[in-house]
Amino acid sequence: MFIDRLIESIKEKNNPTVVGLDPKLEYVPAFIREKAFKEYGVTLKGAAQAILQFNKQLLDAVHDQIPAVKPQLAYYEMYGTEGMIAFDETCKYAKSKGLLVIADGKRNDIGTTAEAYSKAFLGETVLENEIKEKAFDVDALTVSPYLGVDGIKPFIDDCARHQKGIFVLVKTSNKSSGQLQDLVTQDCRSIYEIMASYVNEWGKNVKGQYGYSSVGAVVGATYPNQAKLLRSIMKHAYILVPGYGAQGGTARDCVNSFNPDGLGAIVNASRSVMCAYTSESWKDQYSPEGFADAARAEVIRMKEDLNNALAQR
Amino acid sequence: MFIDRLIESIKEKNNPTVVGLDPKLEYVPAFIREKAFKEYGVTLKGAAQAILQFNKQLLDAVHDQIPAVKPQLAYYEMYGTEGMIAFDETCKYAKSKGLLVIADGKRNDIGTTAEAYSKAFLGETVLENEIKEKAFDVDALTVSPYLGVDGIKPFIDDCARHQKGIFVLVKTSNKSSGQLQDLVTQDCRSIYEIMASYVNEWGKNVKGQYGYSSVGAVVGATYPNQAKLLRSIMKHAYILVPGYGAQGGTARDCVNSFNPDGLGAIVNASRSVMCAYTSESWKDQYSPEGFADAARAEVIRMKEDLNNALAQR
Repeated sequence: MFIDRLIESIKEKNNPTVVGLDPKLEYVPAFIREKAFKEYGVTLKGAAQAILQFNKQLLDAVHDQIPAVKPQLAYYEMYGTEGMIAFDETCKYAKSKGLLVIADGKRNDIGTTAEAYSKAFLGETVLENEIKEKAFDVDALTVSPYLGVDGIKPFIDDCARHQKGIFVLVKTSNKSSGQLQDLVTQDCRSIYEIMASYVNEWGKNVKGQYGYSSVGAVVGATYPNQAKLLRSIMKHAYILVPGYGAQGGTARDCVNSFNPDGLGAIVNASRSVMCAYTSESWKDQYSPEGFADAARAEVIRMKEDLNNALAQR
Repeated sequence: MFIDRLIESIKEKNNPTVVGLDPKLEYVPAFIREKAFKEYGVTLKGAAQAILQFNKQLLDAVHDQIPAVKPQLAYYEMYGTEGMIAFDETCKYAKSKGLLVIADGKRNDIGTTAEAYSKAFLGETVLENEIKEKAFDVDALTVSPYLGVDGIKPFIDDCARHQKGIFVLVKTSNKSSGQLQDLVTQDCRSIYEIMASYVNEWGKNVKGQYGYSSVGAVVGATYPNQAKLLRSIMKHAYILVPGYGAQGGTARDCVNSFNPDGLGAIVNASRSVMCAYTSESWKDQYSPEGFADAARAEVIRMKEDLNNALAQR
């Protein structure tokens, strides 16, 4: 089960953190960008290769501290096919370092097309007769629930079949998330509560040995009160918590997504780790050449921050 | 304005149809598959190249009859980076034939990430100083509204800046679409009605000369009654109508998405066109080698079917 592998890695590293690999080109130190542009020209390929080098050095520095990484597909698609090659290479490199890879793609479509998306990221693509290949080989994928269960079920089937996971959007971290998600229906429940009930239901057949399901949920750190309620509705879902750090969520805000067993949530940080070398906290200690060491220092600081908040609640 | 270009092409070809390019490998005639596998091996590249050849021959046969094509990203992502190269080549080939390209990706994310998706498909990616490149150059993109306006606005900005369009999911064609979309809120409106009001509002600053907006909506042909209501709520939105043909929607079902001016909707058909050569209607007249001619015959039949239904209402 994906969820068992995730929990075991969180326990081993004593760190419920996932590092988001959303590498905007401006985050990449100039020396890496310049080298790549010199080698490949100021092209999409040059940019994609710069990002790949940045990711690899980050992964070298932090892989022993964290259980998982979360590359955000948009930041690779924006460099076209070269960007997708960099995404693929990033995933492979992360896996070679023992990390779980959660692709953040928020994919969603009707059933037959959701099947194709699921094959792309979680399952296998049949080429001819018995010959199959993996397109992008990741461990889990974020998915969006606007189309209801028949847009989700193909992913769940692959979770069972291939030991993979999904995280379904429930309450997202952005400001306007309430525009749809906070609407209240005639039975006095909000859309995010109803989605949470679905997630709980959808995940019941892919539970692992720790009682958690490989069907998880996304609940932003920026909505700690809603997180408390959602934690109680989705007893068995692992919660992926974006919004810590740069988006304003604190470790205390994140605590509401955890269960009393200290499990149940994994907190994402992207910019605060990738750009640690330019941050107020670390820029005096680390030069751009030391960006990966700064990222490591920030990952360790964040781990302690989260573990302290969990201990103090 | 994207929407003006779309309307002019629909008028010129007298055909409110978009052909979905969702090329499952099993749809591709054996002679094309075998040739590609012989050249590139039974690999993801071989499969992707088979699909690209299939698409190109289809486009050669139908481009003068239709205003637009809609490649579905899932069916390219499932062949990995090679699939994305085939997607890119398909889009370029379609544009070279004078077709508008609507990428069906149902992308969605928080604001900064939606910006990256928008750059990927509609805008431009900045590489260095003033140097910009287009990642995937399409005319319009489908987007999913679960995150509210700040996940949509970056796309709308690029619609204005780069003469592009979006189609926002409102009421999708699949069976379980009601699980979220039909929920009724305390002001007695369904989610799809509320989303339709948003779409109307979001599109008001990107209207073209025919009174329609470059912010359109997706409303499935399988829900004709809802389409009638949604047509009246979204006065200025062009409606992309999936679900005709293989999914069970008829031309009469589609009519409800059109305005009295005969405009306002574009109907998608994928499988019924791509697989025309295997269908009951056409398989006696066309061999697998004639798949593109069969697709053309089906496109012409569908055009007449829609135009008759529009004339008879």
